Amino acid sequence: MKFIIGIDLGGTSAKLALFTEDLEAIKMWQVATSSEDHGWKIVPNIVKALQAEILKQGLDLSDCLGIGMGSPGAIDRRKGTVTGAYNLGWETAYPVKEEFKHLLGDFPVYIENDANVAALGEQAKGAAADTENMVLVTLGTGVGGGIVCNGRLLTGQASAGEIGHMIAKVDGPPCTCGSKGCIETIASATGIHRLAEEKALSSQVESPLAKRFKLGEDISVKAIVDAAKNGDALGEKVMKEAMGALGITLSQLACVLNPEKIVIGGGVANAGQYLIDQLQEVVEANTYPPNRRHLKILLAQLGNDAGVIGAASLVLKERKRS
Amino acid sequence: MKFIIGIDLGGTSAKLALFTEDLEAIKMWQVATSSEDHGWKIVPNIVKALQAEILKQGLDLSDCLGIGMGSPGAIDRRKGTVTGAYNLGWETAYPVKEEFKHLLGDFPVYIENDANVAALGEQAKGAAADTENMVLVTLGTGVGGGIVCNGRLLTGQASAGEIGHMIAKVDGPPCTCGSKGCIETIASATGIHRLAEEKALSSQVESPLAKRFKLGEDISVKAIVDAAKNGDALGEKVMKEAMGALGITLSQLACVLNPEKIVIGGGVANAGQYLIDQLQEVVEANTYPPNRRHLKILLAQLGNDAGVIGAASLVLKERKRS
Repeated sequence: MKFIIGIDLGGTSAKLALFTEDLEAIKMWQVATSSEDHGWKIVPNIVKALQAEILKQGLDLSDCLGIGMGSPGAIDRRKGTVTGAYNLGWETAYPVKEEFKHLLGDFPVYIENDANVAALGEQAKGAAADTENMVLVTLGTGVGGGIVCNGRLLTGQASAGEIGHMIAKVDGPPCTCGSKGCIETIASATGIHRLAEEKALSSQVESPLAKRFKLGEDISVKAIVDAAKNGDALGEKVMKEAMGALGITLSQLACVLNPEKIVIGGGVANAGQYLIDQLQEVVEANTYPPNRRHLKILLAQLGNDAGVIGAASLVLKERKRS
Repeated sequence: MKFIIGIDLGGTSAKLALFTEDLEAIKMWQVATSSEDHGWKIVPNIVKALQAEILKQGLDLSDCLGIGMGSPGAIDRRKGTVTGAYNLGWETAYPVKEEFKHLLGDFPVYIENDANVAALGEQAKGAAADTENMVLVTLGTGVGGGIVCNGRLLTGQASAGEIGHMIAKVDGPPCTCGSKGCIETIASATGIHRLAEEKALSSQVESPLAKRFKLGEDISVKAIVDAAKNGDALGEKVMKEAMGALGITLSQLACVLNPEKIVIGGGVANAGQYLIDQLQEVVEANTYPPNRRHLKILLAQLGNDAGVIGAASLVLKERKRS
């Protein structure tokens, strides 16, 4: 029996896990990460923690097939470097793979973008476990995503699956990427909050929620969604606009990729079936019939574990490929 | 030295070609097709023509690696059937592969959608010959396309790459697919003609071209494009609207797929560099910077030969895969 190591890197901690070959976790834990001194302690700390756990399990590194790791930033898959992961201190091309090699010798290490490994996770063990063609869309502070086609991650030249930056509104709100009207500016938690605040303060809609905005209260996206569910006029208008725009984006994805499942994750997806129903309605009305007929839109199932599971699944996929 | 057979099926004729292994055509010719009697003579006629040509070249079927064929309609790749190819008389699942097997015995035959093989053609020998990540968009009566990722055709569950049915205008003009506002209703030859006629007859723009529409003249898309190039106010307005919408569609594709090249083909692309410049400008202003930075938008190079070359290239790709 062989084992697989999954790592999901984040700005304050890394989630680590030891899996069996069928991706059942036998141990999952966290290690603190710090961007201090350009994040040079991150990999050594992770390796130390891994070695201790492997020993504790009565195993040896040679019992493991490889390490899969999800990281923020831009990944150079060939060189094994990560660039622009500012919350890790890895601003310029940080040689992650080389660092692992230095510490572990010739041991297989695969690095992938964190949004992409989350998609692999949902495809391996989550809401899309029974299909080879799926898209994960995560609605958090931004909008992220990953695409699996024929069981393989779609990477393009380097950064395919940048779903958050698909244009939803030409000349729309400015996006952090430098472009305008990206779906991220509308359907992310940030986007939903901005829409609600704008409409409330400009008195476009009057409602209890609008009143709270006018009073200068600090209102969470959960409160906006809850208000919408309870029939608040502002909440409903905002969610209709945000999910209307996201529904069209999903319809574009369905046309281009013809997936079997589109999985919605991230904090905003805590709105649950209410969100899915809104998206379903827009997709139903606006998607090329052959590509919409068998399409399912579903809530993500793995929450924060998607990344570490997907990172481990990457090891299996890359081994199969080579 | 081995050879490859390429076939590009059309409603009035099939283009056939015999290629070397590096996809140089040693012979290219046409065979009439007819939808008569549910198109049952099409495959036997093609096989007869192929056998005669192979004999004439002093070859044997065993000198050939396989047949690749592009067909209109929906392809079931596993079963080898074609459905809904009305101009061939193949309305319901027609057993194309079985028919070839009946006539040729156990000989490799690969069937693919005609828009997809055209993309493979441009990727093998045309405008995108040096990249593994490309998209072909053809602007004809409709808008078609095909997507190659990591050197492989993107198929999704069955019909990925339905670029013509990506939504360009929510609640826009009705599309033949049953949906509304597909890019096909705006940027195809039909769409451009409709836009021009509408704007002329509703006197939205006055110009020599608008006058000709009002006189009830029969005006070609070429005439509209030429008028635009010569500064006609209506022509310019129409092309700006059509290419503006298509540019946003290309920007969506760049975000999702991160291709190195997007290739524009079909009759409307005869407008040449003028078209590319318009698209480039829109993509430049509306695309996620990392995915636009190295993206090239180019004219297709192979014209009507793209399909038959791509069909042959499919044989090489499928052999490599298995």
